[in-house]
Amino acid sequence: MLPSEIIKKKRNNVALTPEEIEYFISSYTNDSLPDYQMSALLMAIYFNGMTTAETVALTKSMLYSGTTINTNLIQGFKVDKHSTGGVGDKTSLIIGPIVAAAGAFVPMISGRGLGHTGGTLDKLESIPGFNTQQSLQRFIEITKKIGTCFIGQTKEICPADKKIYALRDVTATIESLPLICASIMSKKIAEGIDGLVLDVKFGSGAFMKDVPSAKALARALMSIAHSYEKKIVAVISSMSQPLGKYAGNALEVYECVEIMKNKKSLSLHGYDLYEDTRELSLQLSAQMILLSGKTRSIHEAYLLAKTKLESGEALKIFEQLCLEQGGALSDLMLPQKKLELRAENSGFISSFNVEKIGLAGILLKAGRSKADDIINPTAGIEFHVKIGDAISKGDVIFTLHGDDSELFSDALALLAMSFEISLQKPPPHVLIKEVLT
Amino acid sequence: MLPSEIIKKKRNNVALTPEEIEYFISSYTNDSLPDYQMSALLMAIYFNGMTTAETVALTKSMLYSGTTINTNLIQGFKVDKHSTGGVGDKTSLIIGPIVAAAGAFVPMISGRGLGHTGGTLDKLESIPGFNTQQSLQRFIEITKKIGTCFIGQTKEICPADKKIYALRDVTATIESLPLICASIMSKKIAEGIDGLVLDVKFGSGAFMKDVPSAKALARALMSIAHSYEKKIVAVISSMSQPLGKYAGNALEVYECVEIMKNKKSLSLHGYDLYEDTRELSLQLSAQMILLSGKTRSIHEAYLLAKTKLESGEALKIFEQLCLEQGGALSDLMLPQKKLELRAENSGFISSFNVEKIGLAGILLKAGRSKADDIINPTAGIEFHVKIGDAISKGDVIFTLHGDDSELFSDALALLAMSFEISLQKPPPHVLIKEVLT
Repeated sequence: MLPSEIIKKKRNNVALTPEEIEYFISSYTNDSLPDYQMSALLMAIYFNGMTTAETVALTKSMLYSGTTINTNLIQGFKVDKHSTGGVGDKTSLIIGPIVAAAGAFVPMISGRGLGHTGGTLDKLESIPGFNTQQSLQRFIEITKKIGTCFIGQTKEICPADKKIYALRDVTATIESLPLICASIMSKKIAEGIDGLVLDVKFGSGAFMKDVPSAKALARALMSIAHSYEKKIVAVISSMSQPLGKYAGNALEVYECVEIMKNKKSLSLHGYDLYEDTRELSLQLSAQMILLSGKTRSIHEAYLLAKTKLESGEALKIFEQLCLEQGGALSDLMLPQKKLELRAENSGFISSFNVEKIGLAGILLKAGRSKADDIINPTAGIEFHVKIGDAISKGDVIFTLHGDDSELFSDALALLAMSFEISLQKPPPHVLIKEVLT
Repeated sequence: MLPSEIIKKKRNNVALTPEEIEYFISSYTNDSLPDYQMSALLMAIYFNGMTTAETVALTKSMLYSGTTINTNLIQGFKVDKHSTGGVGDKTSLIIGPIVAAAGAFVPMISGRGLGHTGGTLDKLESIPGFNTQQSLQRFIEITKKIGTCFIGQTKEICPADKKIYALRDVTATIESLPLICASIMSKKIAEGIDGLVLDVKFGSGAFMKDVPSAKALARALMSIAHSYEKKIVAVISSMSQPLGKYAGNALEVYECVEIMKNKKSLSLHGYDLYEDTRELSLQLSAQMILLSGKTRSIHEAYLLAKTKLESGEALKIFEQLCLEQGGALSDLMLPQKKLELRAENSGFISSFNVEKIGLAGILLKAGRSKADDIINPTAGIEFHVKIGDAISKGDVIFTLHGDDSELFSDALALLAMSFEISLQKPPPHVLIKEVLT
């Protein structure tokens, strides 16, 4: 096969065969196909898309470019959750323990934050000593023992994805539905799971800005899962405002632990600022529990999740997890310095530009703009208000947290532009828009 | 400037600024921008095109990536001809001498054959000793002395084009109008000419298959020339059948010399098989003479061109050219072996697949499929019939020529599929469709 002929075929909008896709991916992974031909193909895919059959073939080639995890040693239903990312989106830390407490197994391979969105690995690594680089053998052992384990992407799993993602990042080919789908699903299928719950976000802080495009992504991901006979459900949830009370790695761990301790954090308006984190965690956990067959209805699954959270069983598993992975939860460092941003007008909070809030987090070094940026685990942002809240001039909107107050001014300027105050009360914010089964 | 942001901008169909284009081209030429970012940009340009302003800026950046020839030492009008390529298209060898004899200067930088189309350099190099690798200084000297000179692309001229063309060839990004235009015009403007006549081909042997797309290419090339205040005219000519009697390097030189000697080669049907080569050469020469201001009308220019050809002055200049460039014209080698392809049916020749004929030439080693293929200068194909000719079963259609008769069978099979015989007489073939000024 001639690589340039394969590129030309895709360029001319003719579907590639599984053999052509496999040739391209395997040659690229073993370094016999140059970057410049892969980037030309990626750009042609950006423009012409891929059929479901092509996307499934691409996923397969990426999946088998490396090791797949043999979870046969774990007797039980293995289920994972994947979120398309957002700001303050910390539900994995609560969900893993809840679902494990309910009797299913949650082997999670997570990523790091990049751009305005956070990453589960960064959050866990803010716990002193927490090691996300476990061997695959130890990953299985821990999952088997306590029901869940969190590790990072390893060299053995989907090496093609790692190499292609790095190339996409520098060739403006990230924003392609089939490429996104194959990247996500190849890694998830490599985990050896039986079921997957997707949390596909929409809104200003999400990759997909509106509900229809979030649903299109969800449907595309679901088609791939079905072709592998995996159970899958997609929750379409809002990222039109940050989730919960905090964004920032240690601060988010703190929030999760507070929720697992049944604590609340009341806002000026009297509601619990942890509520949306708790609710989304319970809803996603319920979907995972239902997929695992532990209950017969979503209602029962939700009640079981709630019981596991409120009984303290989830917290106990989270503490065990930290112990197994070397993390000293009691040593979690919180930030030393802070600065408040107050409203300059009165009215109603009508919208957030969540991407700007995430970028302010990068300026505080809570996140990274490039993969090799160093982050500060204690830095972050505290959210005091939500969409629909009536506020008066001078009310605190955000608190910036960190150890280096010199970083505050630039982040403050960006945060000042990240929300709108209106005179009319906006329509109520809906956290979960739809569940696709 | 971030290369990935420039790629993204073009991907999103936003026009690039001259500064962005210059940054990309100059970084690529000095090896600080990697191939994979250039190929991603090229594919984005393939899909989204370029405005005239962008194409002009791209041409400029490619032009100034290297040396431009200072032709100020030559007192007079400098004019060149560029053909978009075809099979048997040998007019340059006749045009250079005619136009020089008429008093203008023709400094020609030509290319080699690639794919099904031939190249002027390969034709000249079939003359034993003919050296197309003259220094730029010697190029100017010869042009000044005898009125014309033919050299190959040098390292100093448009190095960006050389590097980008090689990348386009392996990334399926050849077929892009703005990229084709910038590649052609940057090299032509670097020659230091005052005027240019384009021979834009259409038909089965041309890059542009129909008249509207040939005209679109011509118009795009003309816009760039206008932005440099160069005089330009485009002749839209047919490549629906091979030009003249021969395709093949030494055979084409032979045909040109025969024409310059006022010889004819009568077909079975009694017309001169050299006629279309002669006529197109005269028409293109006339356009060049008119551009140079040597005559006031195209009619006068045509008569002057005809006089210079028929008087033997053009032949004399061609002989001087060979002498100056080291070629021994009297030692031209002609092929030793041949094989005839005869018609299996009677009827009228209704069409040729000229690209297939060119590919048969590659099988005979008269052309190359890869830039580093070795060609055989004597190999080629002789054409006995033209569109509209009435033929009988058993009439000779093609003669294959070469020194290695083992190559004949594959070429014969391809040639057998390269023409159609119909029962009805087809409409007459028109050589020159239109002249755009």
